[in-house]
Amino acid sequence: MKKQIVIIGGSAAGPKVAAKSRRMDKDTEINLYTQSNYVSYSACGLPYYIGQDVKNINKLIVRTPEEFEKNNIHIHLHRHCQKIIPSEKMVIINEEKIKYDELVIATGARAKIPNIKNVNLKNVFTLRFLEDGLLIKDIAQRSKSVLIIGFGYIGLEMLEAFLKNDLKVYIVENGNYPMSFFDEEFGEKIYQYIQEKNGKNVEIISNDIVVELKGSSHFKSAVTLNGREISADFCLIATGVTPNIELARECGIEIGVTGAIKTNNKMQTNIKNIWAAGDCTEKKCQITGLPIYVALGSIANKEGRVCAINLNGENETFDGILCSSATKYFDYTMSLTGITQTRAEKIKHLTGFEPISVTVNKMDKASYMPDAKPITVKLTADKKSGKILGAQGIGLGDVDKRINIVTSALQKHMSIWELLHLDLTYTPSTSGAIDPLLTACYELKKIIENDKN
Amino acid sequence: MKKQIVIIGGSAAGPKVAAKSRRMDKDTEINLYTQSNYVSYSACGLPYYIGQDVKNINKLIVRTPEEFEKNNIHIHLHRHCQKIIPSEKMVIINEEKIKYDELVIATGARAKIPNIKNVNLKNVFTLRFLEDGLLIKDIAQRSKSVLIIGFGYIGLEMLEAFLKNDLKVYIVENGNYPMSFFDEEFGEKIYQYIQEKNGKNVEIISNDIVVELKGSSHFKSAVTLNGREISADFCLIATGVTPNIELARECGIEIGVTGAIKTNNKMQTNIKNIWAAGDCTEKKCQITGLPIYVALGSIANKEGRVCAINLNGENETFDGILCSSATKYFDYTMSLTGITQTRAEKIKHLTGFEPISVTVNKMDKASYMPDAKPITVKLTADKKSGKILGAQGIGLGDVDKRINIVTSALQKHMSIWELLHLDLTYTPSTSGAIDPLLTACYELKKIIENDKN
Repeated sequence: MKKQIVIIGGSAAGPKVAAKSRRMDKDTEINLYTQSNYVSYSACGLPYYIGQDVKNINKLIVRTPEEFEKNNIHIHLHRHCQKIIPSEKMVIINEEKIKYDELVIATGARAKIPNIKNVNLKNVFTLRFLEDGLLIKDIAQRSKSVLIIGFGYIGLEMLEAFLKNDLKVYIVENGNYPMSFFDEEFGEKIYQYIQEKNGKNVEIISNDIVVELKGSSHFKSAVTLNGREISADFCLIATGVTPNIELARECGIEIGVTGAIKTNNKMQTNIKNIWAAGDCTEKKCQITGLPIYVALGSIANKEGRVCAINLNGENETFDGILCSSATKYFDYTMSLTGITQTRAEKIKHLTGFEPISVTVNKMDKASYMPDAKPITVKLTADKKSGKILGAQGIGLGDVDKRINIVTSALQKHMSIWELLHLDLTYTPSTSGAIDPLLTACYELKKIIENDKN
Repeated sequence: MKKQIVIIGGSAAGPKVAAKSRRMDKDTEINLYTQSNYVSYSACGLPYYIGQDVKNINKLIVRTPEEFEKNNIHIHLHRHCQKIIPSEKMVIINEEKIKYDELVIATGARAKIPNIKNVNLKNVFTLRFLEDGLLIKDIAQRSKSVLIIGFGYIGLEMLEAFLKNDLKVYIVENGNYPMSFFDEEFGEKIYQYIQEKNGKNVEIISNDIVVELKGSSHFKSAVTLNGREISADFCLIATGVTPNIELARECGIEIGVTGAIKTNNKMQTNIKNIWAAGDCTEKKCQITGLPIYVALGSIANKEGRVCAINLNGENETFDGILCSSATKYFDYTMSLTGITQTRAEKIKHLTGFEPISVTVNKMDKASYMPDAKPITVKLTADKKSGKILGAQGIGLGDVDKRINIVTSALQKHMSIWELLHLDLTYTPSTSGAIDPLLTACYELKKIIENDKN
């Protein structure tokens, strides 16, 4: 009998394991089960579908079930996995017993629902699945106003999407500023940019929490802790995600301190022949070695690849992440890699790092070029060792290039003394003779060395 | 008496040494001598001044002599250094004897003039100094046609500049394709793009050499080896540069195999108290360790910095370059770092590398995004060790980001097995879930590993 590979979950990691496994071995039986109506699609693209940049939802689909079937991968939609029975190497899916030789848990994450009274009213949405995208686009086109609760990546991208649908947008955010995984001044900058660009159509309610939703059956308004009542046609909750680990936990799979499934660097769980990959797993920070949890499509893809390689008898490791991420609000980019000054200070007692940062405001290309645009780059390093810890960027210009250069540097534990020698490409139309990143590095070097003398 | 620092040359490296030296030590006497009418300007910006992107030439000037004087740095324009007398620690400049404690040779490079009959006719230009830019802009605005001899970075950027002045442009190039320091298919791509975009106004004469210029006092036409006669209103020679080393050589300073001034990694020449930096010096390739010669503003800046630090008694090294460079032709970017497949094959006997490359054609962001644009990325590695050797990119999309990520990787001698784990930022508006660079890396890994089995 052929080796039976069973995969639970169909967004990014699951389909990746399936496709890669098939490429590695033509003779296995591969079955993938998902609760959704869709498989293998770009969930990250949904805001752009809702915002009408992407006209056809099919464009977000990487591979259809039919395309998988052509490669002899069987996709089962609308299936709910109730139980894993490791002792019998069996899963129960829609009451049916299914045997596996290798099981991959790729159950992903779900939207975190804050503790709000009446949160189950109709017209209250979260954005996670393709189906959510369809529903939200439909209501956005029929509405005049929306309330977003939460102001991270999804909140920001959906703000743009709703503005493109000519909605009045209210956003309630419990912090001082949006995008709280950046250092505060970056949140301040995006806040200011939103005000400048779309102030008329956006109202941001900071330092407040929604405690109750009102309406008889459908959402009508929200009441905040500070007593504000906000009326809108519908509501989007975007307060982060939580990994789907219940199925794993119930069968004895170890859950990490972050609340996500723990795996080794081959994506194996503690139970033999059970693997996990994607948004349901705990990650390791490459800089600190500490466990962390983030849900990112690029990581899910990489974990799926590593999982498939090991599951099919070859060798590959996934040795952690740098939490690199980026987003764009219209023409304004935010990007980060590694750890921020705020985060580094918070975990000082665990790492021993003495974080220090320098922020540089400069043009993204030679300042005399007519299309030069301002960017802000913040570089963070450990004062004792000079080791780079992370970088953040924001602005109308090309910040993402600079942040990814640091990503590559972080992977090899580069110090500021090494980074400042980087022989970056230079031409007036793409950068200055001294890149903003190198300027930041020179400044940081000066501070660290002066401090030592 | 104060320490006397004398600097010969005023474009990039010289002014950098002066400014950095002043910041390090308030009490030295710093005198900088240049033949030019201008000091401390962006020569790389001249094509954009001629092309009318930059309206005011003063925007290209980084610091004026007056600004230097405020920092007690004395700039002497129109001065010609005739001789260095190391035994007396003296230079002769415009017949005047000037003593130095530390001498910096930053004499830069000059345009290489090919062996062409009547090359000294009027209306035949090279582009190197700010004065050249002024003259060429003036004649471009009064003319209808131009002949460019040579098709590297300057040739390409000046083609754009001339087209923006509504000139008919003829270019004679001795190779099959322009931009011969890229692998040939990249030259082919830019060639095709020029034809598509500006075919009507550009005529490229490949595989040919200009042997004679015609005209009584002013340039009228050029005759090629293949017998073609090309008439135009003026002519630009853009066949590369040659380092200005005569002054150094005459006083016994060692010249390297590339024909440029040899320094150690502190920018010291073989003669005590004489330093050299910028386009007049030989560089070392960080990948091969071999001497090379390139003239790049970004490198000149870095060498000037290192030179100043050591000259003023502190410690810094300049450990080589990656030949990273980039250019843009309208909206089409070309960028490279490290060594190309062609170059790697050429120097195989010296390095022992077995170069292998993979080329990936992909969108620069998620393919469903309406502003996604195609890019081509070529990654080159050593088949035996898996060590990355270089990367080239071209296209309408953001290639420069990908190439600079590799620059950072090359600095730390990353292998393809390490590069493929890079945790690059991902959001549909800036990249795909699997970046084109990582796709190239996966492909390269496959080939190398299959080859080993």
